[in-house]
Amino acid sequence: MLRISEYSAMAEAAIRALNLSSETFDNLYAPIIYGMQAGGKRLRPTILMMAADAFGGSPEKAVNPAIGIEMFHNFTLLHDDVMDKSDTRRGRPSVHAKWDDNTAILSGDTMLTLATKKISEVDDSILRPILDTFNDQALRVYEGQRLDMDFENMTEVALDDYIEMIKLKTGALLGAAAKIGALIGGASKEDAEKMYDFGLMLGVAFQIEDDYLDTFGNPDTFGKPIGGDINNNKKTFLMVKALATGGPNAEALKVAMKMPAGPTKVKTVTRIYETMGMPALSKADVAAYSSKALAAIKKTSLSDDRREAFRKLIDKLITRTK
Amino acid sequence: MLRISEYSAMAEAAIRALNLSSETFDNLYAPIIYGMQAGGKRLRPTILMMAADAFGGSPEKAVNPAIGIEMFHNFTLLHDDVMDKSDTRRGRPSVHAKWDDNTAILSGDTMLTLATKKISEVDDSILRPILDTFNDQALRVYEGQRLDMDFENMTEVALDDYIEMIKLKTGALLGAAAKIGALIGGASKEDAEKMYDFGLMLGVAFQIEDDYLDTFGNPDTFGKPIGGDINNNKKTFLMVKALATGGPNAEALKVAMKMPAGPTKVKTVTRIYETMGMPALSKADVAAYSSKALAAIKKTSLSDDRREAFRKLIDKLITRTK
Repeated sequence: MLRISEYSAMAEAAIRALNLSSETFDNLYAPIIYGMQAGGKRLRPTILMMAADAFGGSPEKAVNPAIGIEMFHNFTLLHDDVMDKSDTRRGRPSVHAKWDDNTAILSGDTMLTLATKKISEVDDSILRPILDTFNDQALRVYEGQRLDMDFENMTEVALDDYIEMIKLKTGALLGAAAKIGALIGGASKEDAEKMYDFGLMLGVAFQIEDDYLDTFGNPDTFGKPIGGDINNNKKTFLMVKALATGGPNAEALKVAMKMPAGPTKVKTVTRIYETMGMPALSKADVAAYSSKALAAIKKTSLSDDRREAFRKLIDKLITRTK
Repeated sequence: MLRISEYSAMAEAAIRALNLSSETFDNLYAPIIYGMQAGGKRLRPTILMMAADAFGGSPEKAVNPAIGIEMFHNFTLLHDDVMDKSDTRRGRPSVHAKWDDNTAILSGDTMLTLATKKISEVDDSILRPILDTFNDQALRVYEGQRLDMDFENMTEVALDDYIEMIKLKTGALLGAAAKIGALIGGASKEDAEKMYDFGLMLGVAFQIEDDYLDTFGNPDTFGKPIGGDINNNKKTFLMVKALATGGPNAEALKVAMKMPAGPTKVKTVTRIYETMGMPALSKADVAAYSSKALAAIKKTSLSDDRREAFRKLIDKLITRTK
């Protein structure tokens, strides 16, 4: 196995080498390159290549499907940014802000088809299960986004529903990445399913940590302004859990949600979260889902040293600062 | 071979039987059913099933991929209506008008993935060429839509560029339908390519006829108000050809394009088209591309009676009133 940073560097290099240039259709393909080359952790392709490598396939053989998974992820970002009217992404204008909504819609559509093409760059003998995994998990992602949008119009969301939403919106794609990588590596059906569970649970841990960092992250390393979720009254793990806890603090939180966006609101809500012990509760749930992810790995036939590689990946993600 | 109306009835029945209902995700799937069940000619699935049947596959075996092609077409309509801000489609509110833009975007994305799943419901031995055909032609459709949007901001469009645009936006998908059907039927690679050419040329003839009907169609049978393209100054075959012809009539047309939308503008532009002989010129080009479509059929190994079925399809499309 390689180091985690080596897989992500391989993915990054392949993304930099993507050649979609077209003079006639520059308005279609330039936004795709812009979206893909914005950087990021390259978590999904890293998981896919690690899984392929762990089960005996070379990471090189997995690099095109890995880019396909990353392109799918970036397609959802293009469309999500239109739907959420988010004008920045990773510190730069989002595609719809730099071009326009129509460009983000159409170039996003194009990315979904290009992603499917990349995912399909596998041996004929495994094309069917890989394509089915990809398509079925893509549907889960749309269902998760639909729930997320529906939650915006609800005053309270049950914690179970929130967890279900992030399983769909974030977990399914990490699960697909791990399972597709395993299949490319030659894993058995059983092992591939365990790898899906690993990715699914890792995705939940990852998203809860992401919600935590948006409020309690270090502004110097987080990469975007702290408190964006608070200002948008977003139904995050912190808010859903705090409201579900009830009591006077939850009531105070409801009042604070009606404050206008700004530093005072962020400070007020953060203070309430702290009083309620949300940082520790959040960390506890991240740890619990990480354990489930690790437990899935332990159920595979992988040797100890390979399991260790995935344990390190989990650790890296839940102790990250961005 | 069955009658043309029997293939389209089979497609219609299968679409009516589509079951995507989901209480949790009703906001995601209900707009898809609404979009799919709006009726229409079902031209694309008809071509796909006819081609499968002609080459010896049963139309039943082709019905799921046929619905996949129709679902892809309907996905593009959901997104095109958002991009064009078109509030009606086949006499009913379009999806984004009945729900909202975000719903049309997300349910459209879902349709693209569902379409890919349906297209993939073929024997493993032909999955690869069918998937590649579908994905490659999908990219052409996006490129065509991109050109169409870019044309809106141009004062003049060369006739060749217009033909290239409709080859991409309309022809590619009809070509894909014919080729995929042929592959399902067991056609040779060579025959499948000829069928693609047939669909491509039929698509060009179909679109030129569509442009003609939008101005010169019978309002009682056309199904939407006559003159919509004129009021939107849309770069149709009629307008592109008229402007390319030049002379005082073309100059008069440029003046008329600056008129406010309304019946007077429609009447004025229609009169100029008539003076320039555009109806006959339009019919001549429809006939020319229909001949090319038929010529492609004649290059296949199909027997005379099967060729005759496709000749009838061409005839039916270019003499239609809606």
